[in-house]
Amino acid sequence: MDAKVSTKPHEMLAATLSDEMAAVNTLIRTRMASDHAPRIPEVTAHLVEAGGKRLRPMLTLAAARLCGYQGEDHVKLAATVEFIHTATLLHDDVVDESGQRRGRPTANLLWDNKSSVLVGDYLFARSFQLMVETGSLRVLDILANAAATIAEGEVLQMTAASDLRTDESIYLQVVRGKTAALFSAATEVGGVIAGVPEAQVKALFDYGDALGIAFQIADDLLDYQGDAKATGKNVGDDFRERKLTLPVIKAVAQATDEERAFWVRTIEKGKQTEGDLGEALALMEKYGTLEATRADARAWAAKARSALDVLPNHEIRAMLSDLADYVVARLN
Amino acid sequence: MDAKVSTKPHEMLAATLSDEMAAVNTLIRTRMASDHAPRIPEVTAHLVEAGGKRLRPMLTLAAARLCGYQGEDHVKLAATVEFIHTATLLHDDVVDESGQRRGRPTANLLWDNKSSVLVGDYLFARSFQLMVETGSLRVLDILANAAATIAEGEVLQMTAASDLRTDESIYLQVVRGKTAALFSAATEVGGVIAGVPEAQVKALFDYGDALGIAFQIADDLLDYQGDAKATGKNVGDDFRERKLTLPVIKAVAQATDEERAFWVRTIEKGKQTEGDLGEALALMEKYGTLEATRADARAWAAKARSALDVLPNHEIRAMLSDLADYVVARLN
Repeated sequence: MDAKVSTKPHEMLAATLSDEMAAVNTLIRTRMASDHAPRIPEVTAHLVEAGGKRLRPMLTLAAARLCGYQGEDHVKLAATVEFIHTATLLHDDVVDESGQRRGRPTANLLWDNKSSVLVGDYLFARSFQLMVETGSLRVLDILANAAATIAEGEVLQMTAASDLRTDESIYLQVVRGKTAALFSAATEVGGVIAGVPEAQVKALFDYGDALGIAFQIADDLLDYQGDAKATGKNVGDDFRERKLTLPVIKAVAQATDEERAFWVRTIEKGKQTEGDLGEALALMEKYGTLEATRADARAWAAKARSALDVLPNHEIRAMLSDLADYVVARLN
Repeated sequence: MDAKVSTKPHEMLAATLSDEMAAVNTLIRTRMASDHAPRIPEVTAHLVEAGGKRLRPMLTLAAARLCGYQGEDHVKLAATVEFIHTATLLHDDVVDESGQRRGRPTANLLWDNKSSVLVGDYLFARSFQLMVETGSLRVLDILANAAATIAEGEVLQMTAASDLRTDESIYLQVVRGKTAALFSAATEVGGVIAGVPEAQVKALFDYGDALGIAFQIADDLLDYQGDAKATGKNVGDDFRERKLTLPVIKAVAQATDEERAFWVRTIEKGKQTEGDLGEALALMEKYGTLEATRADARAWAAKARSALDVLPNHEIRAMLSDLADYVVARLN
């Protein structure tokens, strides 16, 4: 990775789309206001202004621009996508009373569960109003289906995360729900409002889908090999939270009886002791699953890049291609 | 109230609309299924099959039938409305770790917060898909606005419930969010898909709005004067949960300094002792606020009835009129 800021593809996209991103930010601020419930902007400002990369809305703007879109609805849809993302973060933040907060950040994003749920619902409702304003039933259909995939993936993750029967195909469904469904909807709607041919709409969907999967696999891999300073997470958080991700799923698939007993104890039963993380890492090393996971992430990034082939040759296409490389470049 | 089952207006509506209600129930069962996350139908079956009155979907079917609608979309919209209602119940059920469960049912509807949130989100997403299938942007607009009003009302309730500055107008906003917004959307969309003139669409909205407000005020009143056996709640649950409702708001508005100190201690600070509920009831008695609240509920019911005047003369119109009486008849 180059240290110079301007060569990071998401920053190049942000610079190229800066006027439209400014319009998105203004719209987000306007629409999260509530005359009746002043707590809402208080909460959402804290989240929405927190200076995230705004990757999802940028994907919508980029797709629309790449497809030559001339209207204003891409700004609404970009804000829609960011609202859905923020609402999802809020709902993810709800915790149970059973005290399974080990390994989580020390505090909720918000002050309590109830606020997380209700303010999240408000953002969902606002996103729904915004997308209706575009007047496109096809866009509504895409986003409704994405919402169902996201919710289904979240429920699936809840039940599958600590279940050793979870295989790579279930993992992929979870990843689509968690990450890829919103990425692919974000890019697809950009093409739909621009009215490009079906093959290009499909290419945008495929790009977002593969990019999201690459992104999430990379994230899950970094949990086991990341630099705590760079990722802001401790190595092995997912292990401590008994969350099956791809590197472990691959190790479980090849486990001896004795190794399987180790995974049953640490993941299914959650009875972990000092040294278990080291043992888990040793098993991943034994079967080369970190390397295999890295190869999977790169394959998805390559799939994302090649999906772009049928789209117009444009500086934004090059940036989107670089972005796919970038999400896996962290893994070097 | 007559003891004979067949004279209860919601049961007469259910009998008149029984074929369509059966279609709604079938659709609900079909759409809550999830190939990927079997936990979802497990949970929702328990809720959706629980044998509630299905009042909200019935309102949609009744409005459509009253307006001479001949298509099939009213069944989809009725299921939509029931999914939104069930999702809202699930999200209401999320509790905080701070242990404010006093006065609540002994268990969540579900087993944990996380399931309540995520399965609720899934039902929201499913309702969204159903309404998109109607292809009516106007219906989508109505339901998007209802969703925002519901979420805003829920957040407002959270902040305003124990704040003595909450006045009747804020109470009304909360009630619209909690109850009336979905009632009015349920009736309004029935008219919209039937393509009736605007005055009739507005009348259906007004009917649902006033019916929902009457229903919620009656519910809040019964909390202080109900028969625990009939309502399934203990007298004074709202007081114990420090929830300001209309009878208390009216008493606070007329309180002497000393009385105000009582309300500050018991509601705002939540420092309640034995005998405080009796004192609260005595203050409501002193100012006649239970009687005044009853009068308000009846006035809203009357408003609901009179809204029906511009609608076609039809047996269903008579049942809807009786339904408005019925929701406040419980108060006699």
